[in-house]
Amino acid sequence: MAKEMDKIVALCKRRGFIFQSSEIYGGLNGFWDYGPLGVELKRNVKEAWWKDMITRHDELSVLEGAPSSFSMTGLDCSIIMHPQVWKVSGHYDLFHDFMVDCKECKSRFRVDHVTVAVRRVTGDKKPVACETFIVDAETGTGLSKTQSKRLDQAVGQYKKEFGDDIECEQVTMSLDEYLHEAPLGGPAAGCPKCRGELTPPREFNLMFKTTVGAMAGEEGTAFLRPETAQGIFMNFKNVVDSGRVKVPFGIAQIGKSFRNEITPRNYTFRSREFEQMEMEFFCHPDDSRKWYEYWRDRRYEWYVKYGLAGDRLILRDHTPEELAHYAVGTADIEYAYPFLSDGEYGELEGVAHRADFDLRSHMEGKLVLDENQELVVEQNEHGQPKYRGSGKDLRYFDDQARERFVPHVIEPAAGADRATLAFLCEAYQEDEQPDEKGKMQTRVYMKFHPQLAPIKVAVFPLIKKDGMPETAAALYRDLKQAGIACTFDQQAAIGRRYRRQDEIGTPWCITVDGQTAEDNTVTLRDRDSLEQSRIPLADVVAEISARLNA
Amino acid sequence: MAKEMDKIVALCKRRGFIFQSSEIYGGLNGFWDYGPLGVELKRNVKEAWWKDMITRHDELSVLEGAPSSFSMTGLDCSIIMHPQVWKVSGHYDLFHDFMVDCKECKSRFRVDHVTVAVRRVTGDKKPVACETFIVDAETGTGLSKTQSKRLDQAVGQYKKEFGDDIECEQVTMSLDEYLHEAPLGGPAAGCPKCRGELTPPREFNLMFKTTVGAMAGEEGTAFLRPETAQGIFMNFKNVVDSGRVKVPFGIAQIGKSFRNEITPRNYTFRSREFEQMEMEFFCHPDDSRKWYEYWRDRRYEWYVKYGLAGDRLILRDHTPEELAHYAVGTADIEYAYPFLSDGEYGELEGVAHRADFDLRSHMEGKLVLDENQELVVEQNEHGQPKYRGSGKDLRYFDDQARERFVPHVIEPAAGADRATLAFLCEAYQEDEQPDEKGKMQTRVYMKFHPQLAPIKVAVFPLIKKDGMPETAAALYRDLKQAGIACTFDQQAAIGRRYRRQDEIGTPWCITVDGQTAEDNTVTLRDRDSLEQSRIPLADVVAEISARLNA
Repeated sequence: MAKEMDKIVALCKRRGFIFQSSEIYGGLNGFWDYGPLGVELKRNVKEAWWKDMITRHDELSVLEGAPSSFSMTGLDCSIIMHPQVWKVSGHYDLFHDFMVDCKECKSRFRVDHVTVAVRRVTGDKKPVACETFIVDAETGTGLSKTQSKRLDQAVGQYKKEFGDDIECEQVTMSLDEYLHEAPLGGPAAGCPKCRGELTPPREFNLMFKTTVGAMAGEEGTAFLRPETAQGIFMNFKNVVDSGRVKVPFGIAQIGKSFRNEITPRNYTFRSREFEQMEMEFFCHPDDSRKWYEYWRDRRYEWYVKYGLAGDRLILRDHTPEELAHYAVGTADIEYAYPFLSDGEYGELEGVAHRADFDLRSHMEGKLVLDENQELVVEQNEHGQPKYRGSGKDLRYFDDQARERFVPHVIEPAAGADRATLAFLCEAYQEDEQPDEKGKMQTRVYMKFHPQLAPIKVAVFPLIKKDGMPETAAALYRDLKQAGIACTFDQQAAIGRRYRRQDEIGTPWCITVDGQTAEDNTVTLRDRDSLEQSRIPLADVVAEISARLNA
Repeated sequence: MAKEMDKIVALCKRRGFIFQSSEIYGGLNGFWDYGPLGVELKRNVKEAWWKDMITRHDELSVLEGAPSSFSMTGLDCSIIMHPQVWKVSGHYDLFHDFMVDCKECKSRFRVDHVTVAVRRVTGDKKPVACETFIVDAETGTGLSKTQSKRLDQAVGQYKKEFGDDIECEQVTMSLDEYLHEAPLGGPAAGCPKCRGELTPPREFNLMFKTTVGAMAGEEGTAFLRPETAQGIFMNFKNVVDSGRVKVPFGIAQIGKSFRNEITPRNYTFRSREFEQMEMEFFCHPDDSRKWYEYWRDRRYEWYVKYGLAGDRLILRDHTPEELAHYAVGTADIEYAYPFLSDGEYGELEGVAHRADFDLRSHMEGKLVLDENQELVVEQNEHGQPKYRGSGKDLRYFDDQARERFVPHVIEPAAGADRATLAFLCEAYQEDEQPDEKGKMQTRVYMKFHPQLAPIKVAVFPLIKKDGMPETAAALYRDLKQAGIACTFDQQAAIGRRYRRQDEIGTPWCITVDGQTAEDNTVTLRDRDSLEQSRIPLADVVAEISARLNA
């Protein structure tokens, strides 16, 4: 699995999908750039989402599985918002991770993300550690051969010291357990990498901080949004007042968010700057369960439609213990990224029932649970609201039912980078195909859904003469005019040109050859089946359009 | 003019084009959100640019006015980049404004942006000021009636004190002159608003600062990019290595940038968070002048094509004094925004010849001019480079000419928000039209280019019976399926529905009426000419498509 990931990462750099940010200066941990092909792939992913949410949404019909018809609308908010937004939303107080640092080797560990393998000596001796190793819970890499060898050597040392009768056991535990159980025989467990002294676990807020205005006092400290959702809640009233939307309706937004992750990792999966595709769906409280189920299922189907295969994609409902107190349900749509261990999945999208938590908070102030498990405004030591809401009335008035209420919210929150990465990983394929000389060669091809493929069709003149380049160029121009992403290539042998397109996932290649001048047909070659068929030159644009919209 | 701007701003809020960011918390100065219609308008502006730059670019032909054929490619870089990027680019040292603060009234003035009107007393008396007023150079508002009255009163006071023989003169000067000329008779000119003591002018770097990683030391201080351009230079080598582009070629990017403006103003024109559409075009030094002229003219024509009218849009070549030392030329494309005074223009886009300044800087280190007006690497007091470049070879090797060189760069840098605002302002129209009862009423309509209009077509059933709603709904669905942004409206009298669409700039309305059931035709009504024609129902999708692509 890990090996396949290496191949995908290498292909992404070689062919211009993804580059490290500021690479010529050594890069910046947790930041990535999309190259010429990557930007088109990601644009297509975002466009597919926007089309599904907004452009093609039919607000007059009751869609399959939906409780009623509904409206959808878009929005694009600023990344820097009023700081009070994050105080009221809870991010200011609660959006943090625990981390420990090693004072010796300066390694930093996110407590909830690291698993430690400890080989400890038991028997009648006081347990002492032989060796500790980080076993990455997220990447799922177990002990390497070298690590196992080093452990064995350490056991050998212990046996020498304590006699052959000691027994060794290998235990895997979370870093948190490791810190508290002190499995190495003392209160300070020591750095799992170097045994150096660790700092106590510390809170670390994940919001990037900045200062707006020239001096503190004007507006002062502000934050880069850690999610796009709050910008939608900010505009709920504006959208209701300006549009002619009626509850139920959704507001969709695509945009960048920022989280100062302690340990960014796994390529673009956990980065510090990322793009979200979030939608907040506002509905009557009585219907919220039905809408939750509707969106959960619909969002899952969206990934299936664009090519994520059955057993690598799962829909996981949160257990009651995992649920926020106010939520009817939350589900994660997860994908078996190749950098994970077998049986492990990484989050693509969360679909959450958020009840009236957000709108009510922004009306009244930051909400918390009281002893009766009721949501109340959190108070400071003076008995005043800790963080005041806006005081604006964010209730919705249903003029048919003559009812005023705070809508409940269903939130399908997807990561554009994670979706793009999943489509990249899923697309990566290898097979064995004969080359020009009939020798079997490994062919790498990216099996993108045609609507996601950066380039839809490549046009080749078989050879650089007999009018073939001119005919091919004219076809290239026709495709461009029709808005179909296409490329033209007349360099190298035809087989090599096909391979180049396979490797970037171009679904179709059109070759103008000797027969074209005779009967006005061209060869249409399919990336996946490798089938070649002849179609009339005049039909190419219509044929490709039809296949694209199929 | 100012009055018209007020109307545009009010319409933008009322109909959901633009909202203030975090409005329910009182807003945040310099940050704006795009509402349901605004997001579509801006998406269309960006799409029109991307289409022109990338999607429809024909790399096989020599386009009109171009020195040769060329390739174009896209990119999408991170907003937070390695901090060394900004040291080498010069932004860290040079990207600042001068500002002064009033210690009394806490007003802040950007020195180069404020004009002061001073009425001073002359004659044989020592000149002393009567009154000072800010005359805003950018908004161009002169003295108001109240201000003039107060000035007159002040003169009255002075005459009382110094006798009737004193003379008053009114002078307008920049804040810089005001500070240095001390026109109020002393070295400290005093706050032009309240006469309070001013701080000396101070440098203020416009980059937003943040911290990446949990503690200083990991990566430490980083900046939100003040321009997207540097991300393109960062990836020049990656793009050359991964694509099959040959010089000349361009890399285009759309994305957010951030500038901590001292005085954000003029609606979305000068905001602190904004979106850019920048392209860096890499060419051989010998051809760079021709390419500069090509892009300058082509970019101007792009705005004309999408509807900015002749005398409100100008192309202004920089004078030799304004030019950067290394540049062959720079031109601004400017628009007469309604918030400006007559004869004043605001920048829409800058087209700059940047020579090899950027790529060479990122190879060698931050460049400055030496005494011979040659670009050399800036040195610190130890004679070492002040800011080191990457040390990477960013030259391009032309394998046909067997020549290695640092390409010259032409940079057309457009503001997506400024373009959107210009299209909004240009579109705003009023005329007098009879209402249903024949009474003349002011009609407000937004004359957007159809490709920019958020909604292309509105479908109405004339009345809610006789099968009209069903026929109209089926047409609405057909339009949606064809990817045409459309809306459906069956509320209120038909005239009112037309007005609603006029106000948001929908180019065409289709009405299904009594005649439709008889002859399968519908009414097609044009926003600008108000002409109504009947076309077959079955032709609507094709007709609208054809008009959109015209």
